[in-house]
Amino acid sequence: MRVSIEFAAAKSLSYDIFIDELEEIVVRGKAAVITNDKIAPLYLEAFKRKIKAKEIHEVIIKDGEKYKNLQTMEYILNELFKFKLDRKSTLIAFGGGVVGDMTGFAAAVYQRGIDFIQVPTTLLAQVDASVGGKTGVNNHFGKNLIGAFYQPRAVYCESGFLKTLPNREFAAGVAEIIKMALMFDKEFYEWLEKSDLNDETNLKEAIAKSIKIKADVVAQDEKESGIRAVLNYGHTFAHVIEQKTAYSQYLHGEAVAIGIVMANELAVNLGLLQRDEAQKIEKTLQRFSLPTRYQIIDINSFYETFFLDKKSADSKIMFILPCGIGNFAIRDDISEDIVKKTLEVFK
Amino acid sequence: MRVSIEFAAAKSLSYDIFIDELEEIVVRGKAAVITNDKIAPLYLEAFKRKIKAKEIHEVIIKDGEKYKNLQTMEYILNELFKFKLDRKSTLIAFGGGVVGDMTGFAAAVYQRGIDFIQVPTTLLAQVDASVGGKTGVNNHFGKNLIGAFYQPRAVYCESGFLKTLPNREFAAGVAEIIKMALMFDKEFYEWLEKSDLNDETNLKEAIAKSIKIKADVVAQDEKESGIRAVLNYGHTFAHVIEQKTAYSQYLHGEAVAIGIVMANELAVNLGLLQRDEAQKIEKTLQRFSLPTRYQIIDINSFYETFFLDKKSADSKIMFILPCGIGNFAIRDDISEDIVKKTLEVFK
Repeated sequence: MRVSIEFAAAKSLSYDIFIDELEEIVVRGKAAVITNDKIAPLYLEAFKRKIKAKEIHEVIIKDGEKYKNLQTMEYILNELFKFKLDRKSTLIAFGGGVVGDMTGFAAAVYQRGIDFIQVPTTLLAQVDASVGGKTGVNNHFGKNLIGAFYQPRAVYCESGFLKTLPNREFAAGVAEIIKMALMFDKEFYEWLEKSDLNDETNLKEAIAKSIKIKADVVAQDEKESGIRAVLNYGHTFAHVIEQKTAYSQYLHGEAVAIGIVMANELAVNLGLLQRDEAQKIEKTLQRFSLPTRYQIIDINSFYETFFLDKKSADSKIMFILPCGIGNFAIRDDISEDIVKKTLEVFK
Repeated sequence: MRVSIEFAAAKSLSYDIFIDELEEIVVRGKAAVITNDKIAPLYLEAFKRKIKAKEIHEVIIKDGEKYKNLQTMEYILNELFKFKLDRKSTLIAFGGGVVGDMTGFAAAVYQRGIDFIQVPTTLLAQVDASVGGKTGVNNHFGKNLIGAFYQPRAVYCESGFLKTLPNREFAAGVAEIIKMALMFDKEFYEWLEKSDLNDETNLKEAIAKSIKIKADVVAQDEKESGIRAVLNYGHTFAHVIEQKTAYSQYLHGEAVAIGIVMANELAVNLGLLQRDEAQKIEKTLQRFSLPTRYQIIDINSFYETFFLDKKSADSKIMFILPCGIGNFAIRDDISEDIVKKTLEVFK
């Protein structure tokens, strides 16, 4: 005997990303702001005054990628239960990518899902992490391995927060901007090559352009079954570097910068990218004070670590490679030999 | 400045619930069977022979509601990472409601979501828990407070597994069957009043009818914003009883049986249900060897515990009450006085 269950198609989902338009955030029930111990002393009190809610609570976690794990998640969830948040409550992520990813995941699983809003305070989170609904935590097997696709209700990017951002964190965000330009918009990349992002007008322009690219890609492929994977350019290598350095030596965007250089080297070896283009890109990354080199100690161990990546289904490694600037190839058929030969350059 | 992101409507989702039709389960990639230490020695080897997959792994957890928590979830997830399951792998829940709920939640968050299949081995899981995609774990604030709505790809209900089911567990499943009949199908309820569910034909009939009711309700309201809440008849009280007894004294279905009697008492006090109907229902529950009484020690403490329930948004308690048999009312406006007066009967 067979019983079929058929759900009606879910309504289409949309939300807005506001750039420099945050005046107040109004939520219907209780709100809880999730932030970290670096942001809280600087901005939390002023930020809370912008929130209109029945009750406003706060959860302050420690700053850093190494706290992005299930233990911190459980701490956040326990706090939310203590505040007696209900299904009509809203979480507000107020911080960088770590805060955003964890807040989104907490919202996804708290009482099987409540609303959340992103208020990213770092450049990287503004241009990349806060848009698109990838949420989750790391574990000792790798990055973002536990999580959910769960979209926010709105994203508020305020360039004002970037004024106090340390230089390294600013550069880390620029790495993701360069990544998007290289894959999708040659003109934008060429503009980036010569522009000063310390100039406020230029910075806003770069943020808006990156968000538009990201939103466009994600809207086409929310669950990353196709084109969204292109946003992982540089990340296949970056995730290995981050894991090998215990998430403590490089900021995510810094690892991505090195990963872009490694992916480019592979693309050059495969004849997809000209050597001089690869060199130009490396120079651009360096111009924004990004690291471009990482010394691989053990090629085999580095190679094995690729296979822990989520994208490596069926024991194939997926590489996102530039085909010139503004074009890309998604490849999962590259031989171990060619990859290891590429890695040798970084030994 | 504002950028809008708009996702196309998700495709409609459907899946089949097979009753006594399990011959083999074919999955495209790797499979991992999640089961418990009671089921494994009895059935696991024979069951694994029915699975066709690239690799077949197993995770055996301890049996019991008290292990349905984030710690066990983390153990399951770590095992899956050790097996190097990828995004194309499938989890198979092979056990009762606890195994099903946790497997579904693990599938929801492993690498942001992989496929899973339900093979429920208890009556309660077959008629209720395995259908509809409620997944999750308990914590010390209450039941199923952390989780996700995440639908399985298929459900296989085999009545053969019920032959070795202990009497108490069988009865616990009957409680959920009675619940569904009382709310949605008077004729089915009247048939249950006089039928012997130890008879195989009757049992299959009852399973199929319950699954049809459940599938019909869930298809109308996946995320429980309306009618699906009616399936929580008896559960508002049951969750408090389970929490007060540390999830160790009653099986879930037993607590639901008591909860039904409590809800009925409230319905009688509100004039929704006749006293003699309430008495008849209590007798039917008793005929299936279900408990119908729980001694409340402290009325105030019992009452306060209602507010930890997910359904109690905005500090209102939602009660699902029978209006005669086969009809229901959803009420969140019942005064503390009337509820406490009802609870007094159980003191």
